[in-house]
Amino acid sequence: MNEAIPLITLTTDFGTEDHYVAAIKGVILWINPAVNIVDVTHEVPPHDVMEAAFIINNAYRFFPPNSIHIIVVDPGVGSSRRPLLVCTDHHKFIAPDNGVLSLILDQEHIVEAYELTSKHYWRGVASDTFHGRDIFAPVASWLSKGTRPRNFGEAAENLKKIDFPAPKNLDDKRILGTVIHVDRFGNAIINVDMDHLISLNRDILQNSLKLKSGNLTIADFKKTYSEGEPGKPFFLINSSNYLEIAMNQSPAASVLNLKRGAEVLIEIE
Amino acid sequence: MNEAIPLITLTTDFGTEDHYVAAIKGVILWINPAVNIVDVTHEVPPHDVMEAAFIINNAYRFFPPNSIHIIVVDPGVGSSRRPLLVCTDHHKFIAPDNGVLSLILDQEHIVEAYELTSKHYWRGVASDTFHGRDIFAPVASWLSKGTRPRNFGEAAENLKKIDFPAPKNLDDKRILGTVIHVDRFGNAIINVDMDHLISLNRDILQNSLKLKSGNLTIADFKKTYSEGEPGKPFFLINSSNYLEIAMNQSPAASVLNLKRGAEVLIEIE
Amino acid sequence: MNEAIPLITLTTDFGTEDHYVAAIKGVILWINPAVNIVDVTHEVPPHDVMEAAFIINNAYRFFPPNSIHIIVVDPGVGSSRRPLLVCTDHHKFIAPDNGVLSLILDQEHIVEAYELTSKHYWRGVASDTFHGRDIFAPVASWLSKGTRPRNFGEAAENLKKIDFPAPKNLDDKRILGTVIHVDRFGNAIINVDMDHLISLNRDILQNSLKLKSGNLTIADFKKTYSEGEPGKPFFLINSSNYLEIAMNQSPAASVLNLKRGAEVLIEIE
Repeated sequence: MNEAIPLITLTTDFGTEDHYVAAIKGVILWINPAVNIVDVTHEVPPHDVMEAAFIINNAYRFFPPNSIHIIVVDPGVGSSRRPLLVCTDHHKFIAPDNGVLSLILDQEHIVEAYELTSKHYWRGVASDTFHGRDIFAPVASWLSKGTRPRNFGEAAENLKKIDFPAPKNLDDKRILGTVIHVDRFGNAIINVDMDHLISLNRDILQNSLKLKSGNLTIADFKKTYSEGEPGKPFFLINSSNYLEIAMNQSPAASVLNLKRGAEVLIEIE
Repeated sequence: MNEAIPLITLTTDFGTEDHYVAAIKGVILWINPAVNIVDVTHEVPPHDVMEAAFIINNAYRFFPPNSIHIIVVDPGVGSSRRPLLVCTDHHKFIAPDNGVLSLILDQEHIVEAYELTSKHYWRGVASDTFHGRDIFAPVASWLSKGTRPRNFGEAAENLKKIDFPAPKNLDDKRILGTVIHVDRFGNAIINVDMDHLISLNRDILQNSLKLKSGNLTIADFKKTYSEGEPGKPFFLINSSNYLEIAMNQSPAASVLNLKRGAEVLIEIE
Repeated sequence: MNEAIPLITLTTDFGTEDHYVAAIKGVILWINPAVNIVDVTHEVPPHDVMEAAFIINNAYRFFPPNSIHIIVVDPGVGSSRRPLLVCTDHHKFIAPDNGVLSLILDQEHIVEAYELTSKHYWRGVASDTFHGRDIFAPVASWLSKGTRPRNFGEAAENLKKIDFPAPKNLDDKRILGTVIHVDRFGNAIINVDMDHLISLNRDILQNSLKLKSGNLTIADFKKTYSEGEPGKPFFLINSSNYLEIAMNQSPAASVLNLKRGAEVLIEIE
C-alpha cells in the first residue's frame, strides 16, 4: 500500500523567493493531489547546467525506485532544445535535453526516452518561457498517476551530453583531477573516486597519497572531518566515495582559494 | 478520494533560518495531520506587504480549487488591524487586513469574508506578536478539516487595499508602466499585461514596441530568453502574460539598474 | 486514522544548495513512504551546535506528540561521539551526543535513551562522514514505522550537555542576561523569560524595566512591534515568553550592534 505513494523530486535554479516553484507544485498537485513532492534544491546558480547535473546525480540514487525527478535548469527554454522523459531501470527523469542528464546517461541503463510532444498532457497552451510549469510539471504528475511513458511523445535518441572534466591518468602513479563541486561547508570535491584510485593501485589506502594544486600540497589523509587539526587542510574519501579536500570546521575551498574547475594532481607514492 | 486531500500554502517573510515557520507547520499538523502544506515562499523581504501581494497573486491561481492560502507579512501584528478569512469562488485566504490581499480582491469574486474573532479556534491565548502561529495556522487547519468559514468570526467589510502602481495610457500609443517585480534571474517585470496592450491595439504583436526607461531604450521583442544576443537587453511577454525586460543568461535588472518602482514608457509605433 | 500519520522533522546545518538534505529525505522515504517530513531549518550556521540547540528547543514543542526530530549539526561525525535516540514523554529526538539536545534535556522528562549501535537499522555500511544519511535517517524512518526504541542500541547515560549562558540575579532588582539569538528580523532575544522576571517580582509588568547593554539604555516596554516609534529601540515579551529587543520594521540587533553573546543588564525599578 504505502509503496504506492508516488514521489516527484524537484531540482531547479528558480530560487525560493519568487512564485515559480509554487506554480510548479500547484500544477502537480492539481493533477495528482496524492503525490509526495520533495525539493532537491532550487539553489542551482542561474543557468548552471553542469552544477545541476552534479546535484541530481548525487541525489537521485537515494530515492526509492519509481521516483520521478524533474530538473529545470533550462536556459534554452522555448528554443529547439527538446523536453525529455528518460526512463532508467529504476528512475524517471523529466528535463530539457541540454546535458543536465549527462551523468545519469553515463551511469544508468536507459530503458526508454521520449521527447515530450503530446500536448494533450501539457498545461493548456504552454508558454515559451516556463516549460517547468507548463510541460514538465503536468507530465510528471500524469506519469505519477500511471500514464505510460510512451504516451507523452515520440522516442528520442542522441540525447545531449556535455563534457564533464574527467580524471586523467598521467602515469600509474599520477592522476590529474579537477574540483567538480564546492559544498556549503567549503569542502572541495574532486572528480576522482575510490574505484578510480583502486584501479590504479589495489592497496591504495596502504600507500601515501599527495594532492597538489598550485602552490598547495596536502599529504594528510583523514577518515573524518573532526580528525583534522585546526587550520590545516587534509583530504578524505567523502560520503559519495570521492576525494575531497576539507578542513575541520573551516571552509577549505575559500581558505585555499580552490574553485570549481581547479586542477588537482594526485600522486601515489 | 484523492481530491479530498486538503492543501494549505504559506507565504511569509519569516525566512527559513529561525523556528517560526516550523512552529506554524507544527500547529497546523497537530490539528490536521493529513493536510498537505506547500511553501510558496518565506523569503518576502521583511515587512514588504506589496511584494507579498505580488507573490501570492502570481502563485495562488496554480493551486487546485479549495486550497487555503496563509499569508503572514504582518508588521501590524497585535495592533487593531484585523485578522481575516477571505473566501473567493475557488480559494480561501487567511491574512492580516493590511493590503496584502489587494490584488486578490481586484481579481477574484469575494463570496464571504470574516474577521477572525472566534477565539475558540485560536491556539490558547494568542500572543500579541505571532498571529501566524496562534491564529492563522489553527484557523487554516480547522478550515481544512471542514469547519465552516462563518464559524471563525464576524463578517468583515471594507477590506484594506493598497495602491499598486497602475499603468497609465498617456495616449493611444504610449503607456507609462512601472517595474513591479525583479525576480531571481534579474528579469524586470512590468505592470502591463498582454490584455492591456491588446486593448490599445488589437494587432499589437504586428507592431513595433519600444520600451524606454531613463537613458535606456529597448526595441528588441523576443519570444524566448535564449533568442537574446549576449549582453543585449530585450523584452518579452512572460509566463504570466506581462511585459518583462530580460537578458539571455544575465540579470537585466541589475545590469541596467532597473529597480522595483522604476517607470518604463511603452511606445507603440 | 489521521493521527497515525508519522512525522519527522529535520534541523541541520546542511543548507539547501547541495544534495545532502535530499539524500536524507530519500533514505527516509525509501523505508517509509508514508511519513510526513517537515524542515525545521537547514540554515543553522555550519557546525554551530548551540544555535541548533536553540532552534530545536523553540520548534519541537509545537509539533504533535510522537513526532520524531532529527538534528544533524555534527562536527564530530565519525569520531567517538555517540549517535543517540532520546525519547521524552511526547517526542523522540535523534541526534549526535554533542550537546545539541542540551535544552531538551533541561526541560523534558527523559523516558529512555539509546546509543544507536544496531547496525541492522543503518543504511548498509555507514560512511564516516554522513551519519545523517546513513544512521539518523534510517533509524528515524524505522522508528516511524513502529520499531521499538530499545531495538536501535544500548541504553545511553550521561548525555552531553553544553553550558548555555544562564541569567544571573545580581540582586533582587538586577538580572544579568545574554542575547541568545538574533532572528531574521534583527530582533535580539535575551535568555530571560517571563517566569524568571515574575520570580523576582510578581508585579513585574506594573514596574518599570530598563535594559542596558554597553552605552545603550532601553526603557520602552511595548506589547507589539507596531507600537514602536520609527528608529527607536524597545523591548517586549516575545511569542516564546522571552525578553526581546526590537525596533518597528528595523533590524534592532544590527542597528544597535547587538550580537549573540552580548550581555544585557535588566533593572527592575
